[in-house]
Amino acid sequence: MEVQVAISKTKKYATSSSGDTAEVIERPNGGVSVVLADGQSSGKGAKWVSSLVVRKVIQFLADGVRDGAAARAASDALFTERGGRVSATLNILSADLQTGTLVITRNNPAPVVISYNGKIKLLEEGSCAVGLRRDTRPLISEIPLDPGLTVVICTDGLLHAGSFYGDSMDISTCVQAELEGEDPSPERIADSLMNHALKLDQGRPNDDISIVVLRVVSRSGDLIRRMSVRLPVNPIGK
Amino acid sequence: MEVQVAISKTKKYATSSSGDTAEVIERPNGGVSVVLADGQSSGKGAKWVSSLVVRKVIQFLADGVRDGAAARAASDALFTERGGRVSATLNILSADLQTGTLVITRNNPAPVVISYNGKIKLLEEGSCAVGLRRDTRPLISEIPLDPGLTVVICTDGLLHAGSFYGDSMDISTCVQAELEGEDPSPERIADSLMNHALKLDQGRPNDDISIVVLRVVSRSGDLIRRMSVRLPVNPIGK
Repeated sequence: MEVQVAISKTKKYATSSSGDTAEVIERPNGGVSVVLADGQSSGKGAKWVSSLVVRKVIQFLADGVRDGAAARAASDALFTERGGRVSATLNILSADLQTGTLVITRNNPAPVVISYNGKIKLLEEGSCAVGLRRDTRPLISEIPLDPGLTVVICTDGLLHAGSFYGDSMDISTCVQAELEGEDPSPERIADSLMNHALKLDQGRPNDDISIVVLRVVSRSGDLIRRMSVRLPVNPIGK
Repeated sequence: MEVQVAISKTKKYATSSSGDTAEVIERPNGGVSVVLADGQSSGKGAKWVSSLVVRKVIQFLADGVRDGAAARAASDALFTERGGRVSATLNILSADLQTGTLVITRNNPAPVVISYNGKIKLLEEGSCAVGLRRDTRPLISEIPLDPGLTVVICTDGLLHAGSFYGDSMDISTCVQAELEGEDPSPERIADSLMNHALKLDQGRPNDDISIVVLRVVSRSGDLIRRMSVRLPVNPIGK
Protein backbone atom coordinates (compact mmCIF):
# COMPACT_ATOMS: atom_id res chain seq x y z
CA MET A 1 0.00 0.00 0.00
CA GLU A 2 1.04 3.61 -0.32
CA VAL A 3 0.44 6.78 1.67
CA GLN A 4 -0.04 9.75 -0.65
CA VAL A 5 -0.06 13.37 0.47
CA ALA A 6 -0.76 16.57 -1.44
CA ILE A 7 -0.39 20.06 -0.01
CA SER A 8 -1.67 23.14 -1.80
CA LYS A 9 -1.15 26.68 -0.51
CA THR A 10 -1.88 30.20 -1.63
CA LYS A 11 -1.73 33.53 0.11
CA LYS A 12 -4.26 36.26 0.74
CA TYR A 13 -4.54 38.62 -2.21
CA ALA A 14 -2.06 41.51 -2.12
CA THR A 15 -0.13 40.41 0.98
CA SER A 16 3.62 40.00 1.12
CA SER A 17 3.61 36.45 2.43
CA SER A 18 1.27 33.71 3.52
CA GLY A 19 0.64 33.54 7.27
CA ASP A 20 0.23 29.77 6.94
CA THR A 21 3.12 27.34 7.25
CA ALA A 22 3.05 23.70 6.17
CA GLU A 23 5.95 21.30 6.47
CA VAL A 24 6.39 17.56 6.00
CA ILE A 25 8.82 15.59 8.14
CA GLU A 26 9.85 11.96 8.28
CA ARG A 27 8.97 10.27 11.59
CA PRO A 28 11.99 8.74 13.32
CA ASN A 29 10.17 5.43 13.84
CA GLY A 30 8.69 5.27 10.34
CA GLY A 31 6.13 7.28 8.44
CA VAL A 32 5.59 10.96 7.77
CA SER A 33 3.93 13.86 9.54
CA VAL A 34 2.41 16.95 7.97
CA VAL A 35 2.34 19.98 10.25
CA LEU A 36 0.06 22.90 9.34
CA ALA A 37 -0.29 26.17 11.25
CA ASP A 38 -2.14 29.41 10.56
CA GLY A 39 -0.80 32.44 12.44
CA GLN A 40 -3.25 35.01 13.75
CA SER A 41 -3.96 37.88 11.28
CA SER A 42 -2.04 37.85 7.97
CA GLY A 43 1.26 38.84 6.35
CA LYS A 44 4.69 38.79 7.96
CA GLY A 45 3.58 38.83 11.61
CA ALA A 46 1.32 35.83 11.04
CA LYS A 47 4.10 34.04 9.16
CA TRP A 48 6.48 34.53 12.09
CA VAL A 49 3.94 32.94 14.44
CA SER A 50 2.99 29.98 12.22
CA SER A 51 6.60 29.19 11.39
CA LEU A 52 7.57 29.30 15.08
CA VAL A 53 4.80 26.82 15.90
CA VAL A 54 5.59 24.46 13.00
CA ARG A 55 9.33 24.61 13.71
CA LYS A 56 8.77 23.65 17.34
CA VAL A 57 6.45 20.79 16.40
CA ILE A 58 8.80 19.31 13.77
CA GLN A 59 11.72 19.53 16.18
CA PHE A 60 9.77 17.56 18.79
CA LEU A 61 8.48 15.02 16.25
CA ALA A 62 11.99 14.50 14.90
CA ASP A 63 13.10 13.71 18.45
CA GLY A 64 10.40 11.03 18.69
CA VAL A 65 8.00 13.03 20.89
CA ARG A 66 4.36 11.97 20.48
CA ASP A 67 2.14 14.26 18.40
CA GLY A 68 -0.09 15.38 21.27
CA ALA A 69 2.86 16.28 23.48
CA ALA A 70 4.51 18.11 20.57
CA ALA A 71 1.35 20.21 20.03
CA ARG A 72 1.15 21.07 23.74
CA ALA A 73 4.82 21.99 23.86
CA ALA A 74 4.49 24.22 20.78
CA SER A 75 1.53 25.97 22.39
CA ASP A 76 3.50 26.56 25.59
CA ALA A 77 6.45 27.85 23.57
CA LEU A 78 4.27 30.39 21.72
CA PHE A 79 2.57 31.39 24.99
CA THR A 80 5.95 31.94 26.63
CA GLU A 81 7.31 33.86 23.65
CA ARG A 82 4.34 36.18 23.16
CA GLY A 83 2.65 36.20 26.59
CA GLY A 84 -0.66 34.82 25.35
CA ARG A 85 -1.28 37.77 23.04
CA VAL A 86 -0.99 35.80 19.80
CA SER A 87 -2.56 32.55 18.67
CA ALA A 88 -2.17 30.08 15.83
CA THR A 89 -4.25 27.15 14.68
CA LEU A 90 -2.36 23.88 14.41
CA ASN A 91 -2.99 20.51 12.78
CA ILE A 92 -0.69 17.51 12.70
CA LEU A 93 -1.49 14.65 10.36
CA SER A 94 0.76 11.65 10.93
CA ALA A 95 0.99 8.38 9.05
CA ASP A 96 2.59 6.42 11.89
CA LEU A 97 4.05 3.19 10.52
CA GLN A 98 5.01 2.03 14.00
CA THR A 99 1.37 1.77 15.09
CA GLY A 100 -0.11 1.41 11.58
CA THR A 101 -2.43 4.33 12.27
CA LEU A 102 -3.20 7.81 11.08
CA VAL A 103 -2.98 10.23 13.99
CA ILE A 104 -4.95 13.47 13.60
CA THR A 105 -4.07 16.24 16.05
CA ARG A 106 -6.27 19.33 16.12
CA ASN A 107 -5.82 22.74 17.67
CA ASN A 108 -8.04 24.23 15.01
CA PRO A 109 -11.76 24.96 15.01
CA ALA A 110 -11.84 24.09 11.27
CA PRO A 111 -13.25 20.59 10.77
CA VAL A 112 -11.27 17.64 9.44
CA VAL A 113 -12.96 15.70 6.63
CA ILE A 114 -12.52 11.92 6.69
CA SER A 115 -13.77 9.57 4.02
CA TYR A 116 -13.67 5.81 4.38
CA ASN A 117 -15.69 3.18 2.55
CA GLY A 118 -17.59 5.86 0.64
CA LYS A 119 -18.78 7.55 3.83
CA ILE A 120 -17.81 11.09 4.79
CA LYS A 121 -17.32 11.95 8.44
CA LEU A 122 -16.40 15.30 9.94
CA LEU A 123 -14.25 15.82 13.01
CA GLU A 124 -15.72 19.08 14.13
CA GLU A 125 -15.71 19.02 17.90
CA GLY A 126 -14.40 22.47 18.92
CA SER A 127 -10.69 22.64 19.63
CA CYS A 128 -8.66 25.66 20.74
CA ALA A 129 -5.90 27.44 18.87
CA VAL A 130 -2.45 27.30 20.48
CA GLY A 131 -0.59 30.10 22.27
CA LEU A 132 -3.39 31.88 24.13
CA ARG A 133 -3.35 29.96 27.40
CA ARG A 134 -1.07 27.74 29.37
CA ASP A 135 -1.70 24.03 28.95
CA THR A 136 -3.80 24.14 25.78
CA ARG A 137 -4.55 20.57 24.78
CA PRO A 138 -5.22 19.26 21.28
CA LEU A 139 -7.98 16.85 20.25
CA ILE A 140 -6.49 13.61 18.99
CA SER A 141 -8.08 10.97 16.77
CA GLU A 142 -6.38 7.77 15.72
CA ILE A 143 -7.66 5.60 12.88
CA PRO A 144 -6.21 2.56 11.09
CA LEU A 145 -4.06 3.33 8.09
CA ASP A 146 -6.13 1.31 5.62
CA PRO A 147 -6.45 1.58 1.85
CA GLY A 148 -9.46 3.69 0.88
CA LEU A 149 -8.93 6.25 3.63
CA THR A 150 -8.94 9.94 2.64
CA VAL A 151 -8.39 12.80 5.09
CA VAL A 152 -8.54 16.53 4.38
CA ILE A 153 -7.29 19.25 6.72
CA CYS A 154 -7.23 22.96 5.98
CA THR A 155 -6.85 26.45 7.35
CA ASP A 156 -9.87 28.73 7.76
CA GLY A 157 -9.16 30.51 4.47
CA LEU A 158 -10.68 27.48 2.75
CA LEU A 159 -13.58 27.23 5.17
CA HIS A 160 -14.56 30.88 4.73
CA ALA A 161 -13.88 31.19 0.99
CA GLY A 162 -16.58 33.29 -0.64
CA SER A 163 -17.98 34.61 2.65
CA PHE A 164 -16.93 38.15 1.71
CA TYR A 165 -19.33 37.87 -1.23
CA GLY A 166 -22.07 36.08 0.69
CA ASP A 167 -21.10 32.68 -0.74
CA SER A 168 -20.09 29.65 1.24
CA MET A 169 -17.75 26.73 0.71
CA ASP A 170 -18.98 23.19 1.28
CA ILE A 171 -15.80 21.19 1.70
CA SER A 172 -17.47 17.81 2.32
CA THR A 173 -19.58 18.00 -0.82
CA CYS A 174 -16.58 19.04 -2.87
CA VAL A 175 -14.48 16.12 -1.51
CA GLN A 176 -17.36 13.67 -2.00
CA ALA A 177 -17.80 14.78 -5.62
CA GLU A 178 -14.10 14.20 -6.36
CA LEU A 179 -14.09 10.81 -4.63
CA GLU A 180 -16.93 9.68 -6.86
CA GLY A 181 -14.50 10.04 -9.77
CA GLU A 182 -12.04 7.33 -10.74
CA ASP A 183 -9.59 6.92 -7.88
CA PRO A 184 -8.61 10.61 -7.75
CA SER A 185 -5.09 11.50 -6.64
CA PRO A 186 -4.75 13.68 -3.52
CA GLU A 187 -3.33 16.40 -5.83
CA ARG A 188 -6.55 16.34 -7.82
CA ILE A 189 -8.70 16.65 -4.70
CA ALA A 190 -6.54 19.49 -3.33
CA ASP A 191 -6.62 21.32 -6.68
CA SER A 192 -10.37 20.94 -6.94
CA LEU A 193 -10.87 22.39 -3.43
CA MET A 194 -8.43 25.23 -4.14
CA ASN A 195 -10.01 26.08 -7.50
CA HIS A 196 -13.46 26.09 -5.96
CA ALA A 197 -12.31 28.37 -3.14
CA LEU A 198 -10.56 30.76 -5.54
CA LYS A 199 -13.71 30.95 -7.65
CA LEU A 200 -15.81 31.80 -4.58
CA ASP A 201 -13.25 34.47 -3.62
CA GLN A 202 -13.45 35.80 -7.20
CA GLY A 203 -9.78 35.03 -7.86
CA ARG A 204 -8.56 37.21 -4.99
CA PRO A 205 -8.22 35.04 -1.89
CA ASN A 206 -9.64 36.85 1.10
CA ASP A 207 -7.32 34.95 3.46
CA ASP A 208 -4.35 32.56 3.24
CA ILE A 209 -5.58 29.15 2.10
CA SER A 210 -3.80 25.86 2.82
CA ILE A 211 -5.13 22.41 2.04
CA VAL A 212 -3.65 19.01 2.94
CA VAL A 213 -5.10 15.84 1.43
CA LEU A 214 -3.86 12.43 2.53
CA ARG A 215 -4.93 9.20 0.86
CA VAL A 216 -4.03 5.59 1.54
CA VAL A 217 -4.16 3.46 -1.60
CA SER A 218 -3.61 -0.25 -2.13
CA ARG A 219 -1.20 0.32 -5.03
CA SER A 220 1.75 -2.05 -4.87
CA GLY A 221 4.33 -0.54 -7.15
CA ASP A 222 7.99 0.06 -6.59
CA LEU A 223 9.48 0.76 -3.16
CA ILE A 224 10.64 4.26 -4.07
CA ARG A 225 9.75 7.21 -1.86
CA ARG A 226 9.02 10.35 -3.79
CA MET A 227 8.56 13.97 -2.93
CA SER A 228 7.81 16.92 -5.22
CA VAL A 229 7.74 20.65 -4.66
CA ARG A 230 6.42 23.44 -6.91
CA LEU A 231 7.33 26.93 -5.75
CA PRO A 232 6.05 29.76 -7.97
CA VAL A 233 8.35 32.74 -7.76
CA ASN A 234 6.96 36.20 -8.26
CA PRO A 235 9.73 38.21 -9.99
CA ILE A 236 8.56 41.33 -8.14
CA GLY A 237 9.21 39.59 -4.85
CA LYS A 238 12.87 39.02 -5.70
CA MET B 1 8.99 31.48 -12.99
CA GLU B 2 8.80 28.36 -10.84
CA VAL B 3 11.25 26.33 -8.80
CA GLN B 4 10.51 22.62 -9.13
CA VAL B 5 12.04 19.91 -6.97
CA ALA B 6 11.78 16.13 -7.13
CA ILE B 7 13.25 13.76 -4.58
CA SER B 8 13.44 10.02 -5.14
CA LYS B 9 14.73 7.56 -2.54
CA THR B 10 15.13 3.86 -2.16
CA LYS B 11 16.96 1.71 0.35
CA LYS B 12 19.65 -0.92 0.06
CA TYR B 13 18.19 -4.31 -0.73
CA ALA B 14 17.17 -6.33 2.36
CA THR B 15 17.87 -3.64 4.94
CA SER B 16 15.37 -2.46 7.53
CA SER B 17 15.62 1.22 6.69
CA SER B 18 17.42 3.65 4.43
CA GLY B 19 20.49 5.28 5.94
CA ASP B 20 19.78 8.36 3.84
CA THR B 21 17.57 11.21 5.05
CA ALA B 22 16.13 13.94 2.83
CA GLU B 23 13.90 16.75 4.04
CA VAL B 24 12.53 19.92 2.49
CA ILE B 25 12.06 23.07 4.54
CA GLU B 26 10.74 26.52 3.79
CA ARG B 27 13.36 29.26 4.24
CA PRO B 28 12.28 31.97 6.70
CA ASN B 29 13.19 34.74 4.24
CA GLY B 30 11.63 33.07 1.21
CA GLY B 31 12.40 29.97 -0.81
CA VAL B 32 13.03 26.34 0.03
CA SER B 33 15.98 24.21 1.06
CA VAL B 34 16.49 20.51 0.45
CA VAL B 35 18.77 18.82 2.95
CA LEU B 36 20.23 15.40 2.08
CA ALA B 37 22.48 13.28 4.28
CA ASP B 38 23.87 9.77 3.99
CA GLY B 39 24.94 8.20 7.29
CA GLN B 40 28.04 6.00 7.37
CA SER B 41 27.30 2.26 6.76
CA SER B 42 23.65 1.25 6.30
CA GLY B 43 20.49 0.34 8.20
CA LYS B 44 19.34 1.77 11.52
CA GLY B 45 22.70 3.10 12.73
CA ALA B 46 23.21 5.02 9.51
CA LYS B 47 19.65 6.34 9.68
CA TRP B 48 20.25 7.66 13.19
CA VAL B 49 23.31 9.56 11.98
CA SER B 50 21.77 11.01 8.82
CA SER B 51 18.61 12.07 10.59
CA LEU B 52 20.61 13.77 13.36
CA VAL B 53 22.56 15.74 10.74
CA VAL B 54 19.48 16.72 8.71
CA ARG B 55 17.52 17.64 11.85
CA LYS B 56 20.29 19.95 13.01
CA VAL B 57 20.59 21.60 9.60
CA ILE B 58 16.85 22.23 9.22
CA GLN B 59 16.67 23.67 12.74
CA PHE B 60 19.44 26.14 11.90
CA LEU B 61 17.99 27.01 8.48
CA ALA B 62 14.56 27.59 10.04
CA ASP B 63 16.20 30.04 12.45
CA GLY B 64 17.63 31.96 9.47
CA VAL B 65 21.22 30.68 9.83
CA ARG B 66 23.14 30.71 6.52
CA ASP B 67 23.61 27.35 4.79
CA GLY B 68 27.38 27.15 5.25
CA ALA B 69 27.16 27.89 8.96
CA ALA B 70 24.33 25.35 9.34
CA ALA B 71 26.48 22.65 7.69
CA ARG B 72 29.45 23.45 9.94
CA ALA B 73 27.27 23.43 13.03
CA ALA B 74 25.74 20.07 12.08
CA SER B 75 29.23 18.65 11.59
CA ASP B 76 30.32 19.90 15.02
CA ALA B 77 27.15 18.49 16.57
CA LEU B 78 27.80 15.02 15.10
CA PHE B 79 31.49 15.22 16.10
CA THR B 80 30.51 16.13 19.66
CA GLU B 81 27.84 13.43 19.85
CA ARG B 82 29.97 10.58 18.46
CA GLY B 83 33.53 11.70 19.14
CA GLY B 84 34.59 11.72 15.47
CA ARG B 85 33.92 8.01 15.04
CA VAL B 86 31.02 8.39 12.63
CA SER B 87 30.60 10.43 9.47
CA ALA B 88 27.82 11.45 7.13
CA THR B 89 27.79 13.12 3.76
CA LEU B 90 25.68 16.24 3.54
CA ASN B 91 24.26 18.37 0.74
CA ILE B 92 22.07 21.43 1.04
CA LEU B 93 20.34 22.78 -2.04
CA SER B 94 18.65 26.12 -1.41
CA ALA B 95 16.49 28.23 -3.69
CA ASP B 96 17.06 31.50 -1.83
CA LEU B 97 14.46 34.04 -2.94
CA GLN B 98 16.07 36.77 -0.85
CA THR B 99 19.23 36.73 -2.98
CA GLY B 100 17.64 35.22 -6.13
CA THR B 101 20.28 32.50 -6.12
CA LEU B 102 20.63 28.77 -5.82
CA VAL B 103 23.06 27.94 -3.03
CA ILE B 104 24.74 24.53 -3.26
CA THR B 105 26.46 23.33 -0.10
CA ARG B 106 28.61 20.19 -0.31
CA ASN B 107 30.10 17.96 2.35
CA ASN B 108 29.98 15.06 -0.04
CA PRO B 109 32.62 13.69 -2.42
CA ALA B 110 29.82 12.81 -4.89
CA PRO B 111 29.69 15.38 -7.68
CA VAL B 112 26.82 17.79 -8.26
CA VAL B 113 25.54 17.96 -11.85
CA ILE B 114 24.53 21.39 -13.13
CA SER B 115 22.99 22.04 -16.51
CA TYR B 116 22.43 25.53 -17.89
CA ASN B 117 21.95 26.66 -21.47
CA GLY B 118 22.38 23.10 -22.70
CA LYS B 119 25.81 22.75 -21.07
CA ILE B 120 26.56 20.23 -18.34
CA LYS B 121 29.01 21.16 -15.60
CA LEU B 122 30.16 19.05 -12.67
CA LEU B 123 31.01 20.35 -9.23
CA GLU B 124 33.48 17.67 -8.25
CA GLU B 125 36.14 19.37 -6.20
CA GLY B 126 36.71 17.05 -3.23
CA SER B 127 34.74 17.94 -0.11
CA CYS B 128 34.78 16.18 3.26
CA ALA B 129 31.96 14.34 4.97
CA VAL B 130 30.78 15.84 8.28
CA GLY B 131 31.37 14.54 11.80
CA LEU B 132 34.95 13.22 11.58
CA ARG B 133 36.86 16.35 12.57
CA ARG B 134 36.28 19.61 14.32
CA ASP B 135 35.67 22.57 12.04
CA THR B 136 34.85 20.68 8.85
CA ARG B 137 33.91 23.23 6.21
CA PRO B 138 31.60 22.71 3.25
CA LEU B 139 32.21 23.84 -0.32
CA ILE B 140 29.66 26.43 -1.35
CA SER B 141 28.60 27.48 -4.86
CA GLU B 142 26.06 30.17 -5.58
CA ILE B 143 24.47 30.58 -9.00
CA PRO B 144 21.62 32.78 -10.26
CA LEU B 145 18.18 31.24 -10.01
CA ASP B 146 17.38 31.54 -13.71
CA PRO B 147 14.94 29.59 -15.90
CA GLY B 148 16.68 26.72 -17.67
CA LEU B 149 18.81 25.76 -14.69
CA THR B 150 18.85 22.10 -13.63
CA VAL B 151 20.80 20.75 -10.66
CA VAL B 152 21.13 17.12 -9.54
CA ILE B 153 22.53 15.99 -6.20
CA CYS B 154 22.69 12.43 -4.96
CA THR B 155 24.14 10.04 -2.42
CA ASP B 156 26.89 7.60 -3.36
CA GLY B 157 24.42 4.76 -3.91
CA LEU B 158 23.61 6.38 -7.25
CA LEU B 159 27.23 7.06 -8.10
CA HIS B 160 28.29 3.47 -7.47
CA ALA B 161 25.24 1.71 -8.88
CA GLY B 162 26.30 -1.38 -10.80
CA SER B 163 29.85 -1.39 -9.43
CA PHE B 164 29.19 -4.70 -7.67
CA TYR B 165 28.61 -6.19 -11.11
CA GLY B 166 31.46 -4.33 -12.79
CA ASP B 167 29.11 -1.79 -14.36
CA SER B 168 29.24 1.94 -13.87
CA MET B 169 26.72 4.74 -13.75
CA ASP B 170 27.25 7.86 -15.85
CA ILE B 171 25.03 10.43 -14.20
CA SER B 172 25.90 13.34 -16.53
CA THR B 173 25.09 11.40 -19.67
CA CYS B 174 21.83 10.20 -18.19
CA VAL B 175 20.82 13.76 -17.21
CA GLN B 176 21.91 15.13 -20.59
CA ALA B 177 19.82 12.51 -22.40
CA GLU B 178 16.72 13.44 -20.42
CA LEU B 179 17.27 17.16 -20.92
CA GLU B 180 17.34 16.64 -24.67
CA GLY B 181 13.71 15.53 -24.38
CA GLU B 182 10.83 17.99 -24.31
CA ASP B 183 11.14 20.08 -21.16
CA PRO B 184 11.31 17.08 -18.80
CA SER B 185 9.94 17.48 -15.29
CA PRO B 186 12.37 16.98 -12.39
CA GLU B 187 10.33 13.88 -11.47
CA ARG B 188 11.04 12.42 -14.89
CA ILE B 189 14.77 13.07 -14.58
CA ALA B 190 14.87 11.59 -11.07
CA ASP B 191 12.90 8.52 -12.16
CA SER B 192 15.14 8.00 -15.15
CA LEU B 193 18.29 8.14 -12.97
CA MET B 194 16.71 5.82 -10.38
CA ASN B 195 15.54 3.30 -12.98
CA HIS B 196 18.95 3.27 -14.62
CA ALA B 197 20.65 2.71 -11.25
CA LEU B 198 18.25 -0.08 -10.28
CA LYS B 199 18.89 -1.79 -13.59
CA LEU B 200 22.67 -1.62 -13.05
CA ASP B 201 22.16 -3.03 -9.53
CA GLN B 202 20.00 -5.80 -11.07
CA GLY B 203 16.92 -4.65 -9.14
CA ARG B 204 18.60 -5.09 -5.75
CA PRO B 205 20.17 -1.78 -4.76
CA ASN B 206 23.62 -2.36 -3.34
CA ASP B 207 23.36 0.79 -1.22
CA ASP B 208 20.75 3.38 -0.25
CA ILE B 209 20.06 5.65 -3.23
CA SER B 210 18.73 9.20 -2.98
CA ILE B 211 18.37 11.65 -5.85
CA VAL B 212 17.34 15.30 -5.76
CA VAL B 213 16.59 17.15 -8.99
CA LEU B 214 15.87 20.88 -8.98
CA ARG B 215 14.74 22.78 -12.06
CA VAL B 216 13.90 26.42 -12.61
CA VAL B 217 11.31 26.91 -15.32
CA SER B 218 9.84 30.06 -16.83
CA ARG B 219 6.27 28.81 -16.45
CA SER B 220 3.97 31.56 -15.26
CA GLY B 221 0.90 29.77 -14.01
CA ASP B 222 -1.05 30.19 -10.81
CA LEU B 223 0.55 31.35 -7.56
CA ILE B 224 -0.17 28.11 -5.73
CA ARG B 225 2.59 26.30 -3.88
CA ARG B 226 2.34 22.57 -4.10
CA MET B 227 3.98 19.65 -2.40
CA SER B 228 3.43 15.92 -2.91
CA VAL B 229 4.62 12.86 -1.04
CA ARG B 230 4.45 9.18 -2.01
CA LEU B 231 5.37 6.79 0.79
CA PRO B 232 5.21 3.10 -0.13
CA VAL B 233 4.42 1.01 2.93
CA ASN B 234 5.72 -2.50 3.16
CA PRO B 235 3.06 -4.47 5.08
CA ILE B 236 5.82 -6.60 6.63
CA GLY B 237 7.42 -3.50 8.05
CA LYS B 238 4.30 -2.61 10.04
